[in-house]
Amino acid sequence: MDHGAHPHSPPGPTGVFRGGEDMDPMKALFEPGCVAVIGASASFGKWGYVIPHNILRGGYRGELVLVNPRGGTLHGLPLYRSLEEAGSRVDMAMISLPAAQVEGVLEDCARAGVRVVIPIAGGFSEASREGALMEAKMVEKARSLGMRVVGPNTMGIYSGPASLCALMPPVRPRPGRIAFAAQSGNLGTQMLGWGAYRGVGFSRFVCVGNQADLDFLDYLEYFGVDPATEVVLLYVEGFRRPRETAEVIRRISRRKPVVVYKAGGTRAGSRAAASHSAALAGSDEVFRGVARQSGMILAETTEEMLDFSDALAKLPLPRGGRVAILTWGGGWGVVTADLCERSGLEVVPLPQEVRTELDSILPPYWSRGNPVDMVGLFDLAAHARCLEIVASSPAYDIVIALGSVNAAGAFSLRDEGPGVEERRKRVREMTLAFRRRVAGLVEITGKPIITVGMPQREDELFEGGSCGGDRLCVYTSPERAVKVAAMLARRAEDLAGRRGPGGEGP
Amino acid sequence: MDHGAHPHSPPGPTGVFRGGEDMDPMKALFEPGCVAVIGASASFGKWGYVIPHNILRGGYRGELVLVNPRGGTLHGLPLYRSLEEAGSRVDMAMISLPAAQVEGVLEDCARAGVRVVIPIAGGFSEASREGALMEAKMVEKARSLGMRVVGPNTMGIYSGPASLCALMPPVRPRPGRIAFAAQSGNLGTQMLGWGAYRGVGFSRFVCVGNQADLDFLDYLEYFGVDPATEVVLLYVEGFRRPRETAEVIRRISRRKPVVVYKAGGTRAGSRAAASHSAALAGSDEVFRGVARQSGMILAETTEEMLDFSDALAKLPLPRGGRVAILTWGGGWGVVTADLCERSGLEVVPLPQEVRTELDSILPPYWSRGNPVDMVGLFDLAAHARCLEIVASSPAYDIVIALGSVNAAGAFSLRDEGPGVEERRKRVREMTLAFRRRVAGLVEITGKPIITVGMPQREDELFEGGSCGGDRLCVYTSPERAVKVAAMLARRAEDLAGRRGPGGEGP
Repeated sequence: MDHGAHPHSPPGPTGVFRGGEDMDPMKALFEPGCVAVIGASASFGKWGYVIPHNILRGGYRGELVLVNPRGGTLHGLPLYRSLEEAGSRVDMAMISLPAAQVEGVLEDCARAGVRVVIPIAGGFSEASREGALMEAKMVEKARSLGMRVVGPNTMGIYSGPASLCALMPPVRPRPGRIAFAAQSGNLGTQMLGWGAYRGVGFSRFVCVGNQADLDFLDYLEYFGVDPATEVVLLYVEGFRRPRETAEVIRRISRRKPVVVYKAGGTRAGSRAAASHSAALAGSDEVFRGVARQSGMILAETTEEMLDFSDALAKLPLPRGGRVAILTWGGGWGVVTADLCERSGLEVVPLPQEVRTELDSILPPYWSRGNPVDMVGLFDLAAHARCLEIVASSPAYDIVIALGSVNAAGAFSLRDEGPGVEERRKRVREMTLAFRRRVAGLVEITGKPIITVGMPQREDELFEGGSCGGDRLCVYTSPERAVKVAAMLARRAEDLAGRRGPGGEGP
Repeated sequence: MDHGAHPHSPPGPTGVFRGGEDMDPMKALFEPGCVAVIGASASFGKWGYVIPHNILRGGYRGELVLVNPRGGTLHGLPLYRSLEEAGSRVDMAMISLPAAQVEGVLEDCARAGVRVVIPIAGGFSEASREGALMEAKMVEKARSLGMRVVGPNTMGIYSGPASLCALMPPVRPRPGRIAFAAQSGNLGTQMLGWGAYRGVGFSRFVCVGNQADLDFLDYLEYFGVDPATEVVLLYVEGFRRPRETAEVIRRISRRKPVVVYKAGGTRAGSRAAASHSAALAGSDEVFRGVARQSGMILAETTEEMLDFSDALAKLPLPRGGRVAILTWGGGWGVVTADLCERSGLEVVPLPQEVRTELDSILPPYWSRGNPVDMVGLFDLAAHARCLEIVASSPAYDIVIALGSVNAAGAFSLRDEGPGVEERRKRVREMTLAFRRRVAGLVEITGKPIITVGMPQREDELFEGGSCGGDRLCVYTSPERAVKVAAMLARRAEDLAGRRGPGGEGP
């Protein structure tokens, strides 16, 4: 058993550690060998009922200890009257009790070996002056007992490597390489749910809550050295230590991209943030200055949070900003060309040799320009060949492929009647083969290939909860694809600038 | 039988007219009593096969005449060797023949009484100089025979009142109040498909193609007086008569909002547009100047095309820009408050009387601010009461309601096991009741109430292809909702300015 002598040693074969008094709090939080839920409840619908349910359903492989002074059972597990009665050595405890009762259970936690507590209750500093005093006292007590505190006023945490879903909402995140710290449980867990559906996976998630003790800076330090994490995502209303945090982001972002959505920058937004997470949100202007200097990647919309993180986790960075556009129909090609040019990407004309190669595949009337309009081409393998030709050309750094990723369905006109099952199966096979081909081309060419699928029903794209692999990014509009392409080009430029002859840059 | 003495008299009880030599071409196009498909084909997968299939499946109530020189049958209808053999009086003919063969059938068409032809083929002016000559000759011939031409290089038309789906792709649009002219069949029919799924309905659709004869100006004139149309939507690469078109838009937009997406405004985009629709796309700057003066509503993204049109067709205009935000969880409230303020909307604090009323519904710890955070409220009828209180307050012109529209699912934690069908039914009923309540409040208060639903799977929002009625707009992110709110406020301001003491304004 690994007792965590090195704070960030990789997980053992089971992905689960046994704790110890010297266990790093971040390890106790994200890779605990034993989790307790204090305030577990057999009353259906209560948080004390839901959280153990989510942990068990999520497939946590460590030990789960449930505590309720009234005893009984829940989900087939005993409800212990106290941690002492349970007798287990516990690494992390979720506390599902009203704010005023949290302090009272801290000593029990410390005696059981707990290194981190997660009090989920609201009613602390976000609610009132009395709440703020109670919060300060609670944190002081925990710290004096050698424990750290997540939140309070938090929806919990998720850890992919530990299959630990210690969350309030019934979301089942997909494991992956993105670590996400969010100052909103509601927004954060929504992103986890969308990710599960759209094929975006997470290594870690924490709802930072009121940041009364552990704050963004602490989580960032951990994500920076966490081997399970390749991309960092933050939803921030306010940093508690803005200057130091920016400095850490500057350091981490040399190796791992840090995507940030900053909320609460307007007057209306900052008033809302104060009553939501007790955050002191700085102004938009101040934040943008900090962001530029720290190399963080700003998500301008909530949609970009997932879109950017997913692309950074799955696609290589481009060597430049020269884009080839493939389209299955002209209008979307025009729209995408406009979007690229407005985003600072270059839609350079097709070199003669690329035209010649495409001539052998496309119908005689094809437009011979970039965007390459594959209109009239009803063969997905031929789409893939066009993609290969364009992606292999040294004239291009990035490829955006519109339509093909869900085109197979359009090749089969009869969506009812005899043989429909056979046709659907064939459509699925053609689609999967195309997707595998795209992923393969990303590997071979080392270039980002970004696909856009625009089916009538979004779920046609995400059937089975997967977009088809580790190297495939699918977006539902050219706008989203072009924003991702431009972001990747900027990121590549930023890294080159930092590594360039001028040393590390700003 | 109405022979079209008045060019825009409303349709008869069947919604279908009988044509005549004096029939208005737009009436012959959108409300024909008899449609011919020239080049109909029994070969599965050919356009000559697909188009009759789509017309029949769409439920067209007029007469359909199929022509193929080789005879035979298709979809149970005879394939006549010529229009003459068919002997019917035809109002509109879709010509599914290669470009070079179109001119040869025009005399047959004219003899059968056809007023409008729709040659779908490409290979005209968008393809080459020879194609341009062929196009000019074909149009001259048609005009000399008293016929007008849609396209060529077009995917066809749709008419809601006539249930006429004369389109190449297998889309089945939803009937409604939006008339849509698109210079891209691919993009245009995609929007129709999304509309069908998301509850956005259309009165008319035309893919304008190369605009060799009928152009945006002609369609606009018709939409302006068409009683079935309340909102006009355009996807434009280039106007053929920009000044006159802007003038018509200025006139129409006093009564019917005109939403425009302009593509091809960059160098890369205009190159693509030239080879796509033979359009001479003007620069972004010139277009924006024209747009401002004409009162058109610019869609900045393809998503806004449907979002804006739908809202304008379903929601009343606000009296001002004061927004109340309801949310089910804090983070999304913060994000939405930011977005409103950045869009020029005012997130004004709650008046005392509104707070007092909300106190009786919300849990004691509620934040007492705008956004109104309904966190902890697990009762959709109570959500609706909060909405009613806020929407009824004279302090607010617009309400954005986040989360409630799909919250019912979250009230039921068990999505499996015994009783799941009963629980699902209850969730659907609660959701529908809430949606009806929202639509009712829009009617009663005369204010736009914009709902945002963010389920894990988008299809949970659009189950059964409907969002729940004529007065309900549902969007999948706060960004989309706030853009709609800001657009409605600008439209109200624009109209007030035109009607104001300064007369009509610019």
